[in-house]
Amino acid sequence: MDIVFGIFATVLDQVQKPTLAFLIGGMLLAAMGSKLEVPDPVYKFVVMLLLLKVGLGAGISVREANLAELAVPAVLAAVVGVGIVLLGAGTLARWRGVSRVDGLATAGLFGAVSASTLAAGMAVLDDEGVAYEGFIGALYPFMDIAALVTAIVLAKVSVARRAAASGGGTLTLGGAPPRVEGLGGGLLSGILSDTFKSPAISALLIGLAIGIFAEPDSVYKSFYEPLFRGLLSILMLIMGMEAWSRLSELRKVAHAYLAYGLLAPLAHGALGFGAGLLAHHLTGFSEGGVVLLAVMAASSSDISGPPTMRGALPEANPSAYVGTSTGLGTPVAILSIPLWMALAGLAIG
Amino acid sequence: MDIVFGIFATVLDQVQKPTLAFLIGGMLLAAMGSKLEVPDPVYKFVVMLLLLKVGLGAGISVREANLAELAVPAVLAAVVGVGIVLLGAGTLARWRGVSRVDGLATAGLFGAVSASTLAAGMAVLDDEGVAYEGFIGALYPFMDIAALVTAIVLAKVSVARRAAASGGGTLTLGGAPPRVEGLGGGLLSGILSDTFKSPAISALLIGLAIGIFAEPDSVYKSFYEPLFRGLLSILMLIMGMEAWSRLSELRKVAHAYLAYGLLAPLAHGALGFGAGLLAHHLTGFSEGGVVLLAVMAASSSDISGPPTMRGALPEANPSAYVGTSTGLGTPVAILSIPLWMALAGLAIG
Amino acid sequence: MDIVFGIFATVLDQVQKPTLAFLIGGMLLAAMGSKLEVPDPVYKFVVMLLLLKVGLGAGISVREANLAELAVPAVLAAVVGVGIVLLGAGTLARWRGVSRVDGLATAGLFGAVSASTLAAGMAVLDDEGVAYEGFIGALYPFMDIAALVTAIVLAKVSVARRAAASGGGTLTLGGAPPRVEGLGGGLLSGILSDTFKSPAISALLIGLAIGIFAEPDSVYKSFYEPLFRGLLSILMLIMGMEAWSRLSELRKVAHAYLAYGLLAPLAHGALGFGAGLLAHHLTGFSEGGVVLLAVMAASSSDISGPPTMRGALPEANPSAYVGTSTGLGTPVAILSIPLWMALAGLAIG
Repeated sequence: MDIVFGIFATVLDQVQKPTLAFLIGGMLLAAMGSKLEVPDPVYKFVVMLLLLKVGLGAGISVREANLAELAVPAVLAAVVGVGIVLLGAGTLARWRGVSRVDGLATAGLFGAVSASTLAAGMAVLDDEGVAYEGFIGALYPFMDIAALVTAIVLAKVSVARRAAASGGGTLTLGGAPPRVEGLGGGLLSGILSDTFKSPAISALLIGLAIGIFAEPDSVYKSFYEPLFRGLLSILMLIMGMEAWSRLSELRKVAHAYLAYGLLAPLAHGALGFGAGLLAHHLTGFSEGGVVLLAVMAASSSDISGPPTMRGALPEANPSAYVGTSTGLGTPVAILSIPLWMALAGLAIG
Repeated sequence: MDIVFGIFATVLDQVQKPTLAFLIGGMLLAAMGSKLEVPDPVYKFVVMLLLLKVGLGAGISVREANLAELAVPAVLAAVVGVGIVLLGAGTLARWRGVSRVDGLATAGLFGAVSASTLAAGMAVLDDEGVAYEGFIGALYPFMDIAALVTAIVLAKVSVARRAAASGGGTLTLGGAPPRVEGLGGGLLSGILSDTFKSPAISALLIGLAIGIFAEPDSVYKSFYEPLFRGLLSILMLIMGMEAWSRLSELRKVAHAYLAYGLLAPLAHGALGFGAGLLAHHLTGFSEGGVVLLAVMAASSSDISGPPTMRGALPEANPSAYVGTSTGLGTPVAILSIPLWMALAGLAIG
Repeated sequence: MDIVFGIFATVLDQVQKPTLAFLIGGMLLAAMGSKLEVPDPVYKFVVMLLLLKVGLGAGISVREANLAELAVPAVLAAVVGVGIVLLGAGTLARWRGVSRVDGLATAGLFGAVSASTLAAGMAVLDDEGVAYEGFIGALYPFMDIAALVTAIVLAKVSVARRAAASGGGTLTLGGAPPRVEGLGGGLLSGILSDTFKSPAISALLIGLAIGIFAEPDSVYKSFYEPLFRGLLSILMLIMGMEAWSRLSELRKVAHAYLAYGLLAPLAHGALGFGAGLLAHHLTGFSEGGVVLLAVMAASSSDISGPPTMRGALPEANPSAYVGTSTGLGTPVAILSIPLWMALAGLAIG
């Protein structure tokens, strides 16, 4: 019972935090029929600033890391990010009644990383005196971006496939029927190219490149970082208004999201734990590092994910992905930290 | 004579402060025919951020207050706010030649509260060693929002009444004449509902709700508060440009605004003083509290008022309401602080 | 050879700084076909904030200076600013194949002042224990604004002249042919008036006026200054995207910009040095002051210039003026500081 109360208390705590409070605020505005709106040009700019910040921060942490040490854990982190999305694609996104795009967007957020959950994990390790590598902060972009891009590409493939299956229409009149297998080739590369050219992903990547190759630290600290939480609160208000209007779509599948939100963090954490153990045997990755890789995998993005999904997959329902990840995934991930520590103690310590 | 010089010096001082300096800057831009403009989507976002900040700040101060102690003075503060607007509706807004909407918008700003004048009052009491309740800061939203909403609703009723009186036009062709008494019922509730749904008031209220029920303190301090003065300077520039183009409308009624700007703060302060005295006898409200309730009532809004009015009553002339409140009302209110202290000393001390 | 390596190292260093890194980032985005864009209303607002900040900062430093001491050096600084642009109009802007508007915009940026190069000069003098006047910071707006306005007016005159020469078209049907001599009179005053009314210059001037006559220091420090570097990084991203698409225009005249970028700072520094020497003999202007006037003249604007040119001369190619000034002019100017110190030691010390 304690664990249930624990989850409940953490959920309540989470609800009072700015991120979720503004999301609920936006839902209230929509429910009372408010005419408040964030004009579209401003909204686009807010998303751009948020993603530039996420990219810059990730790039700076990669630049400051030792690339030789980073290589193996970084590849494993990316593999875990992709694996989490594939797992979600085979479970949540196949659930009867769950929209495939919504399911993939949710899996993408669960594959992405919550910087604050990661920080909580580091604080617990520090308290317990468990050491970990200094470059851990540079691992999260690999898992984060791998998961987000995989989810977006799979969702776009699914949309294209459905369009092709439903006739493909006007383009094939009198010609050969569209070949679904074609999706593996030209279409996939088209979708990949579209994804990298999309405003959301290209803002993320250019921020990453500037963070790695230039020295934007001063402007990052004086501008992007201080504005970040505030602009995120605005984005949450906007997403809350939209989420309210699309909440009814979820009525029949709420149990699917509830089950996924409660169980997926544990499965993902186990995946991350296994990858960390592998790195431990391959390169001597530390006990603390294994715990933190599990925490990263268990966590779901409350920062990079929502603006990326909203920018790159406007058709996905934010009630589904933000609600499940911020409302359930994050509290469960925070509560699971001691579990990974105990497992690491058994397996390594 | 001293008081005249005092007013003059305070007016000069006020003119150099950013708020009025940017307003005058905007008027200069309009006078020289500048093509500078703030694009509409950005302007709407600036107003939204300003009102979210005002609401959040008010909500946080209400959350931190003891609601039991707050109840009686809060109700009295709201009554004073409404009373000030009704007084203005019966005097300035009925003046021959004064536009009713402009008069009500001005009365709304005089009913709303200037946080900086309130802070000046607190500083004087601290210097004199006069004690006051810690929850005073949580009283101002009650007076502020009550006054602004009353003014907006009365102005919208007046516009609707005038429209109805001038025929009501196409809707009643061949039907019964529109019944003005109907304004008391369905129309009033329609206007109230419109007011709460308007972008300005709903931004204010959602900020208030988030401030009371969640814990947005970190994002408030790192984002909303630092941006506030700067975004206000932008708003003042915009309002100055508009004020210049509408200044000529006021030429024939300048004496009305001059008289109101000089005398109303004293009348309103007396109203607030009376309410404070009542609270003193009902609940033991302190001497310092009585002084500060008078100062709040005497002050006129330089912060929450202009963006709210501009958002909710775009037809009102900012030359009238911002000019009168910031140019005359605020200096007179600041200079009247010693008067309320002397009166409180006589009545209570 | 040392000097060549020195220039190369400074160029590399410059490339990693946020200003140029975001410019190159924007070019990369354009090269990879990214769909990222800054919506036009937001872009206009960003430019407005940047120019208000530049104006406010300049105004505050003028207000804090002693106007009597400032008079002679200020007039000389303005003369140097105009002189640099006239020099550029007679050389770079007449080069075969160089667009006259691009050449004038580049000369305008080389006439304008880089605050960071000026600060570097002050730091070097402080290290060497060479004294200079406290009001030096108040000189730069005179050179800056004189150069920018001269360049914009000359460019607009040239556009109007070309339009007149190519027929003048529909307006003169059946009338007298347009008189090109008319450019000296009504047309010039029209262009001057247009320039002062343009959003860019009027934002700069109203900021200057508010900085001089009011006390916007608090809002300047809490809002305009902290946002500045960040908004500039956004502007650079936008200009980089545009620069990429217009880079090919410069292929045939790259040598002209290369020669101008390497040699002009030295010629301009000599001009500033001469003006400083004149002030030394007229009013006892200090040795350090003479050095700093030369540094100001040698430097080219990386702050006030790009947004002003982009706002007032949208037809000019940012690849030309930002590339030449930030990529070549600024490093050469920084490297030339010891030269002016040595010359001043010979001429005065």
